[in-house]
This record gives sequence, C-alpha cells and structure tokens, in this order.
Amino acid sequence: MTTTPVRQTSHLLSRRDLDFMLYEWLHVVDLTTRSRFQEHSAETFSAVLDLSEQLAVRKFAPHNREGDLREPVVGSEGRVELIPAVREAIDAYIAAGLQAASFDHAYGGMRLPVTVQKASSLWFTAANASTTGYLFLASAAANLLVAHADADMVDRYARPMIEGRFFGTMCLSEPEAGSSLADITTRAKLQDDGTYRVRGTKMWISAGDHELGENIIHLVLARTGGTGSGIKGISLFAVPKYLVESDGSIGERNDVVLLGLNHKMGNRGTTNTVLGFGDGTHRPRGEAGAVGYLIGAEGNGLACMFHMMNEARIAVGSGAVSLGYTGYLKSLAYAKTRLQGRRAGEQNPSSPRVPIIEHADVRRMLLAQKSYVEGSLALILYCARLVDEQASAPDEAERDRARMLLDVLTPIAKSFPAQWCLAANDLAIQVHGGYGYTRDFDVEQHYRDNRLNQIHEGTHGVQGLDLLGRKVRVNGGRAFRMLIDSMRQTALSARGRDGEPAVLAELLERRIDRLVVTTETLSRSADREAAMANSSVYLEAMGHVVIAWLWLEQVVVAAGKVDDFYNGKRAAARYFFHYELPRTDHQFDLLCRCDRTTLDLDPEWL
Amino acid sequence: MTTTPVRQTSHLLSRRDLDFMLYEWLHVVDLTTRSRFQEHSAETFSAVLDLSEQLAVRKFAPHNREGDLREPVVGSEGRVELIPAVREAIDAYIAAGLQAASFDHAYGGMRLPVTVQKASSLWFTAANASTTGYLFLASAAANLLVAHADADMVDRYARPMIEGRFFGTMCLSEPEAGSSLADITTRAKLQDDGTYRVRGTKMWISAGDHELGENIIHLVLARTGGTGSGIKGISLFAVPKYLVESDGSIGERNDVVLLGLNHKMGNRGTTNTVLGFGDGTHRPRGEAGAVGYLIGAEGNGLACMFHMMNEARIAVGSGAVSLGYTGYLKSLAYAKTRLQGRRAGEQNPSSPRVPIIEHADVRRMLLAQKSYVEGSLALILYCARLVDEQASAPDEAERDRARMLLDVLTPIAKSFPAQWCLAANDLAIQVHGGYGYTRDFDVEQHYRDNRLNQIHEGTHGVQGLDLLGRKVRVNGGRAFRMLIDSMRQTALSARGRDGEPAVLAELLERRIDRLVVTTETLSRSADREAAMANSSVYLEAMGHVVIAWLWLEQVVVAAGKVDDFYNGKRAAARYFFHYELPRTDHQFDLLCRCDRTTLDLDPEWL
Repeated sequence: MTTTPVRQTSHLLSRRDLDFMLYEWLHVVDLTTRSRFQEHSAETFSAVLDLSEQLAVRKFAPHNREGDLREPVVGSEGRVELIPAVREAIDAYIAAGLQAASFDHAYGGMRLPVTVQKASSLWFTAANASTTGYLFLASAAANLLVAHADADMVDRYARPMIEGRFFGTMCLSEPEAGSSLADITTRAKLQDDGTYRVRGTKMWISAGDHELGENIIHLVLARTGGTGSGIKGISLFAVPKYLVESDGSIGERNDVVLLGLNHKMGNRGTTNTVLGFGDGTHRPRGEAGAVGYLIGAEGNGLACMFHMMNEARIAVGSGAVSLGYTGYLKSLAYAKTRLQGRRAGEQNPSSPRVPIIEHADVRRMLLAQKSYVEGSLALILYCARLVDEQASAPDEAERDRARMLLDVLTPIAKSFPAQWCLAANDLAIQVHGGYGYTRDFDVEQHYRDNRLNQIHEGTHGVQGLDLLGRKVRVNGGRAFRMLIDSMRQTALSARGRDGEPAVLAELLERRIDRLVVTTETLSRSADREAAMANSSVYLEAMGHVVIAWLWLEQVVVAAGKVDDFYNGKRAAARYFFHYELPRTDHQFDLLCRCDRTTLDLDPEWL
Repeated sequence: MTTTPVRQTSHLLSRRDLDFMLYEWLHVVDLTTRSRFQEHSAETFSAVLDLSEQLAVRKFAPHNREGDLREPVVGSEGRVELIPAVREAIDAYIAAGLQAASFDHAYGGMRLPVTVQKASSLWFTAANASTTGYLFLASAAANLLVAHADADMVDRYARPMIEGRFFGTMCLSEPEAGSSLADITTRAKLQDDGTYRVRGTKMWISAGDHELGENIIHLVLARTGGTGSGIKGISLFAVPKYLVESDGSIGERNDVVLLGLNHKMGNRGTTNTVLGFGDGTHRPRGEAGAVGYLIGAEGNGLACMFHMMNEARIAVGSGAVSLGYTGYLKSLAYAKTRLQGRRAGEQNPSSPRVPIIEHADVRRMLLAQKSYVEGSLALILYCARLVDEQASAPDEAERDRARMLLDVLTPIAKSFPAQWCLAANDLAIQVHGGYGYTRDFDVEQHYRDNRLNQIHEGTHGVQGLDLLGRKVRVNGGRAFRMLIDSMRQTALSARGRDGEPAVLAELLERRIDRLVVTTETLSRSADREAAMANSSVYLEAMGHVVIAWLWLEQVVVAAGKVDDFYNGKRAAARYFFHYELPRTDHQFDLLCRCDRTTLDLDPEWL
C-alpha cells in the first residue's frame, strides 16, 4: 500500500486518493510516451509527490496558525514584515526545485506534467494556503511572460521568478473597479525609449509587497489612451518593484509604493495590498511615473492577462479543494476517536460510548465532505490533465478538444470547489462540535482561509455570467457539446456494467438531458435579460452535473475492485447521487421558466 | 411613517418590519385586554422599542468590533478582564429597566409581553451579540429559578439577577460529555444541613466567569447517586460563585474556579469557560466541595433545565436572526451605493456605472437574505407570541394549543435561523465583494459570531433527533397535527384571495401534504434506524415548509396594501416560494424511501 506513518498522520490529503486519480483514472504515466515528458516515469512522479508531502508537513504546516495570528505588518522604512517561517518554507520549496518543476529545461525546469505539478501543489495549499500564495503567483506570472513576452523580458523577469529570486503579482482591480475591468483608470504613457510610465492605484493585490526575494514583478493592466475605451483600451505591462539592468542586476527603486495592507477574515499570511503606481514617491531615472514594459500588443492586455487569470481560476479551485480536503480528513480523524453517546436504539445508559462516526448524522456530514472534496479534486486534476493534453497530445484534434473542454470547465473548476469545499469546511467545524469553533483546532481557520475563494479571481456571480453568457455559447456551443459528449460517454460505459453503476448512469443521464434542454432554452430565449438573470443558478446546477459525472468516472474505475478504499469511493458517489444531484431538478425548473423574480423588483422595495 | 434618521442609519434591524410583525400580523396590542398585560398599550410597547434601538445603537454597537479584537483575558489574581465598554453597556441596559422588563411586578418588572421583550432583545443582539450574552443568560437563569425553585432561593438568587446585580450560567456539558447528557459525571453529595457538595468539571460554559456583577449563579446538572444512571440520575443545583448569606449579603468564595478560557472563531466577547467545581481551591465553610442548592426534586434536573434550555434555544434562534438581519441591511446599503459595472445589455462602456443592486445576481443574494431573515424573524416572534398565549390566554384549550405549538416549533426556531441567517451572513460578505472579506466591514464578524449558533444549545443534529424522534410524535402527534392545521388554515385563507396569494397557497399546500405523508411514513416505518437516519434532512425540510407558511401569513396581511414595504414583502415571499421551497421536494423523496446511505457504511471505508 502507498500509505506510510507520516502520510497517515499528516491529515493534509490522501496519497492513496491522489494515486488513484493520477494512475488508475487519469493514467498520467501514459504521458511519458510523449516526447515532452519522456524523461519521466511513475517513479519520478511518485518522488515528486513524496517530496511534496514531506516538505508540506515539515515546512509549511507548522506555521499555518502562526501566520494567521501574526499577520503581516508594515515595519521600519515601510517594509512589510512577515514571520520568519514563511521565508524558510519558501526557500526550501525553491531549493527542492519545485518552483521550476513544470517549466522547460531552458528555464532550469524538469518539464513535469501539469497534472503531477498540480497534485504536488495541493499538499502545500492544504498545509498553508497563505505561504503558498507567494510561490504560485510568481510561477503564474512567469507562465504568462513565457507565453506572451519577448525573449529579453523573459530573461530579465520570468527566469528569476522561475529560479525563485523574484516574485510576481497580477494587478487588475482598482478601488473603484473591482469586477468591472472596463472601468479601470490606471494610465500608461509611451516614452521615447519604448518604455511606458504607469500611473494609478491598484487594489486587492495579493503578495503585492514583501521582502521574500530580490524583486517583485507586477503585471499591471493599464490604458494607453490610443486604443479606445472599455476593455478594448487596456494593455498589459510588467512593472518591477526595482528596475532590472540589462545584465540582470537589480537597479534603482521603481515608483511602486505600498499604500496599505488589507486586513482579512482569513488567508492572513498572504499580504493583500493597495499599491500606488507613479505617485511620485520615487523618481526612477529621474522622471515621474512607474517604469513599465508592454507585454504583447497595445490593446491586447486582457487577452494576455487571461492566460494568468485562467490559470489563477483553476488555482483558486485547487486551493479550495486542498482546504476542503484537509478539513475533511481532520474531522474524519476526530469522528473516529471522539467518544460520545450510544448507537441509535441502545437503551442502556451504562453501555460503552461509541465514536461519533457511529451516528448517522455525523456520517452524513463526513460523506458530504468526501463527496465534495474528492469530486472537486477529480475536477481539478481532470483540468490539469487537459492542460497537459493541450501541450502534448499528438494530434491537433485532441489538443483542440482539450482546449475546448478546459475553456468550458474553468468557471466550474473555480466555483464548485470554492462553494462546496467551503461547505465541507463548515461541516468539518460542525463534526468537531464546540471544539471546531475554537482556535485550538484547525478547521475554523480552514473555513476563514477558504472563504476568500468565492470572491477573488472573479466572484461566484462573475463565473456564472462567464459560463452561461460566453463559455457554453462560443463557437456555436462546440465546447459545451464536447463536454456533454464526454459525460454521455461515461454514462454509456457505466450502463454496460451491472448493478449500481448502471443505476447511477441513469440518474446522471436524466440530468444531462435537463442540462442540454435548459441550455438550449436559455440560448434561444428572446428575453436575454431573463435568460441571464439566474446565471449563478445555472453555474451551480451545471457544477453538480459535472461533479456527478466525475463521480461516475471514479465508480467505473473502481468497478469490480473491493477493498475499503473502493468501497469508500462507491459510498461517496452514492451519497452525491442521492443527496446532492437531485437538487439540480428544481434549479433546472427555475432556469427553464426564465424566472424574473430578481428582475421584476424595484430596489426601493428592499 | 415610523422611520426616523437614527433608525435609518443604524442598519441593525428594520423598525418598520418589527412594527409590521408586532402590530399588523401578531396583534400584540390585543394582549393588553388581558389582565396580565392590562397596564400596557401600543404606546408603552413602542417606547420600549424606541429605547431599545437607541440604547443598542449608542451603547452596544460601538464596541462590537473592539470586543472581537480584545477578547477576555485572565488577569491578575485569576480575574477575567473584559473591555470596559461591556460593563458600561450592561449597566445602561439594567438601569433602563430592561433586564426586569418581562418579570412580574413582585420582582421589580413591568410584565412586558414576551413578544415585545423579544423584539426589544433583537436590537441588542444585532448590535453586539457577545455583550448581550451576559444579560440573557442571567434572565434565563432567573426565569428558571422563578419557575422551579423555592421562595427563599428565588429571593436569594433570582431577584438579584433580575435586578442586574448577579449573573447566571447554565452548566450542562463536560469535557467528555458534550451533546450526551447521560454521561455527565459531576457529583453532588447531600450534607446534613440539606445543602449539597458538588464536584466535577464543566465545559463550554458561556459567561462562566467575569467581574460584571457581585456574583454568578451557576445552574449545574450533577448526579446525586441515589437516583439511577443515565439522564434519570441527574439533578439540578444552584451553585453560586460566592455564597449568599440569609440577609442577601455576599459571603465567602465558593469552590468554583476558572480552569480556562476557550478561544473561539467568533462571539469572542462572551467568555467561554472550563469551570472546576469542588477541586479544593477554596474551602467554603471550611469543607471540601462547592456548595450547591437543589432545585426541584432529585432526579428531575433535566426537566427543570429544559425550562432554560427551551428558552435558550429560541434565544439562539433570535440571536441568529438579529445577526442575519443586520448583515442583510448592511449589504443592502452597500449594494445601493456601490457603483460597479453597467446594466445587462448595455454596450457603451462610457455610460455611467450603476449601483450593484441593479445586477440580477446581487438582487438574488439580497432577496435570499431578506427571505431568510424576515422569515426567521416571523418564526421567532410567533414563538414569543405563543409564550404569551401560554401565560395569558383566557381559556385552557388556547393555552394548551400554544404550549403544543411552541413545543413542536422549538427545534425549528433554533435551527432554521442558525442555518439560514448564517447563510444570509455568507451572502452579505459576498455582496460586499473583497471588502466583505476584510475586517474593515462588519459582515465577516457577523458570520463568525453567528457560526456558533448551529453548535450550542443542542447542535443541528440534536435538533433533528429531537424534532423527528420526539416532538412530532409525542401525544400521538397531537402538536404536529395542530401545526399542520394552522398551516392549512393560512393556505385556505390565502386561497380566498385572487392572484399571487392563491398561487403561493397551492405551492405551500403541496408541501404540507408531502410533510404529512413523510411524517406518517417515517413514524410507521418498521426500520426505525433508517427512519431516523435522515432526521437532519427532515428538520431542514420541515423548516422550509414552516418558513414558507409564515411568509404566506405575511403575504395575506400585506394583501391589498401597496407601497414599497409591502411590495418588498411580496417579492421576498415570491423568492422564497420559487427559489427555496422547491428544494424540499427531493428531501421528502429521500426521507420517504428511508435512504440508508449513511447506515450501510463501514467507517473504515472513509
């Protein structure tokens, strides 16, 4: 078996489950037959996962609560002070080669499949979401630069981020423009030397200031003025905290200043900042304005930024999964050891007490958590597998299919875990009873940390608009149809097996049919406003169908295999199909009649 | 109109809504025709509500965040130190006569109807749940003593609590016995003088230690040894922190010591303690053991304690309502003023931005909150009205009916607000976006404070067991049938009106029928274990039916009246019936088939 004492006691994730998903279901070893991943093998993958768990347990988990209690402060000379353990953990991660892992050899990486890299990353977010935030923003920023910036910029900014010397941010929101990027007012003015001078204020910038590395590269959306209003006028710039000389050495201070730290409900260890660009505090090269470097073409900023945003959205989902997962394992361990009450029907008050896992309602709360977190994990790893397909599948049709599926699944990969792994954390508190409400146990912090995930990188509502307004419609609904086909294929294969898989397949097919009809109804509706009014409900209903599909996938893989692990998979699938999936029925009813309750309302009535 | 500038800006509760419920729906003024309440009038009720709002705004709300940031600590000589504002607020409350308000004249009270007293109390919990906790525990303890203790004990302990000089607690749980009272081990031994000596450890004791008054009277469940095992062997004792001499003066220190403070996710301003009774720190009257005084008969402790527990359960529900309500009003105010984005379909990016309340999904989140919090408020005030009926209805049949309805509604009055007003707080955070996740806004604290309410005074699961296992069955289901009759009566009256009320009535009747059939199916099931396995689902389904009924009640009252307020009532009812009530359908399906998913499970599979 794959469990070891350390793994059993860490309660961060289940390695057995990760192995199941990676090897038995997603067949990641098959990737090693492709040239991009040919140096890899099941052994290298397992080594990465072993290392990740060990490092997460030893370096990241121990300061998770301390980071919550002692949040970042602005210290002397305006420098942001973090607890020392953050730097130690980050240094160990970088030294282990994990920051570069999925990058090309040219950048010192090892071309690790994104699927395995994602599985690795889950250990760290489960152990300490806040500390991990600094690392993941840097690698996502580097990914964007590698994809969109010219070679000189990649060398100057991306390479040091991959090496772990620089860090990165994404600067989109502004105080008066949160979800509405069309309204950003930060300006960038072209200079004679081809650089830009950037002026404006950015809000909600995670990891926006700290002293963890030599530099911070801000990826900033700003207007150049010449390319129109709304989102069409927006370009993307790299704005380093310190200018970088042509030889790569650190130059003078750029005019990017910390205007304030936000103090949050959770996720407190990651600085969240208000940043001023070009407010005149510093005068790089003797002139006013923060020096910025255009990435891609003028007016194409949002398209470039979406490279990072899509990655970040799936990262939000995976962060939510890991917090949900560790909360589940902790409440499971508690339920197995905490003695309280007697089995239902036991009349003798002096009979021995039983572990609370014997109580039906505690089991319900555990099965619910398991169904949410393992269903979400499947979705996240499936998406990561699509990223690998996109990069390495031998024929274009397969790469195109992967791109399409990833596109339509991204809002769900962001929102389902953010909603339901948070619900899992809520249940983990409840299983702990009064103890779960105290700060002596981890679960209340997991809840607070996880609450962020419905808000950042596009709120829940924004994901609903994206899914129903764009993703299921683009290219005449091609991506949506591909997804439907994939789900039907799974149902078909489950129908071919006797017993429960066939029963679940029928339940899934019924909802796939409803999803298709609902989507067509909304697409054809003459009343576009009413059709879009319940897009969050649509997001949630489709999320449940997708997760049911991925549970059926797991049931098919587990078919014919009998041990505790596979029995657990079947039990959680059963729970999801019988307790969760049916909630979509009234959501589809509501959607199909284009309910106008929210529209036929005067704000003054509230 | 009844609104004034102070009311409009407090964002604690809606006075207009309280007036609607008290006067237009529950007709509290009718109570003044009964001898018990004959000195009262609409004017005295309104004066109490005016005073309550003012006091809550001026004395309780201002230190709500400070109490969260600076939680109680154990200071010099083991004394618990609270921020000074707590004492000031409590003194003002007592000085205003509110602590005694609903008590008899004999205790310095003004016989305020419980319905009005409950409405008054909501202002304070909305403003500061933690500070209010000290007051409410004292009055609930005094209520118990007045009902069950002899005259001397009432004089010695209850009277000073009503006067605001003493405070009180309820001591049920122990470290190894949380929800399972049958397992408590605290012992009480009869002495020659008729007093008892109490020894044991109590856990999760709210307001268990502080210096707010002269004394703290702990109401303690303990075993006397002679009356059997399980819950039958439990008796109730008053155990004062300081002994009280026969002349009422404060005597020596009793052997009740603070063993520790719990540090919680929220509700931080109320001390939550581990208390040691009779551990030998003090030796009152020169002997070992904490001096305790039996309340009621030996072995009858739980029955007495339920007097306080039932009151506390409804208080938990009303606390949850008030936190949900203030969060709703704050997110509503934010949504009306925060500009972001444009109306759906607006193509011109330079058109003016709109308040976010114009977005359908924000309206959905506001209507959901309104439907939860006003529905819950209706339930709490309805229950309070039943308490008044129980005490003052002219004929026994009416008093009996009130007692029955209150009995069956108590688990729902505790659990629906605890679950759904918490969900409202979650939505209030979401409406605020990133700001809602910061500690600069109130809503994240409301969430954390409110999260307690699903745990204490009987967890959510315990309420489900109580409802399905006991409350709907006792006396051959008489209370349940009375409730069903009341609901059908409302539906019938709504059917008599044209248009929407009749439509909603039909939707409600359909679910009443399902509730009845489900309840019968479960009662008759031969597989008792399976019938009880989903009692939490039953609790939630019945909760939604009850709240739908109370929304229909409001719609009937509002029928024919047209202004913003009544239109808002109709909109929220519409939301609840179309978005919320249908979720019961699959819950009833699950219940009727006695789903065994949670039972047919080996814990090792998880």
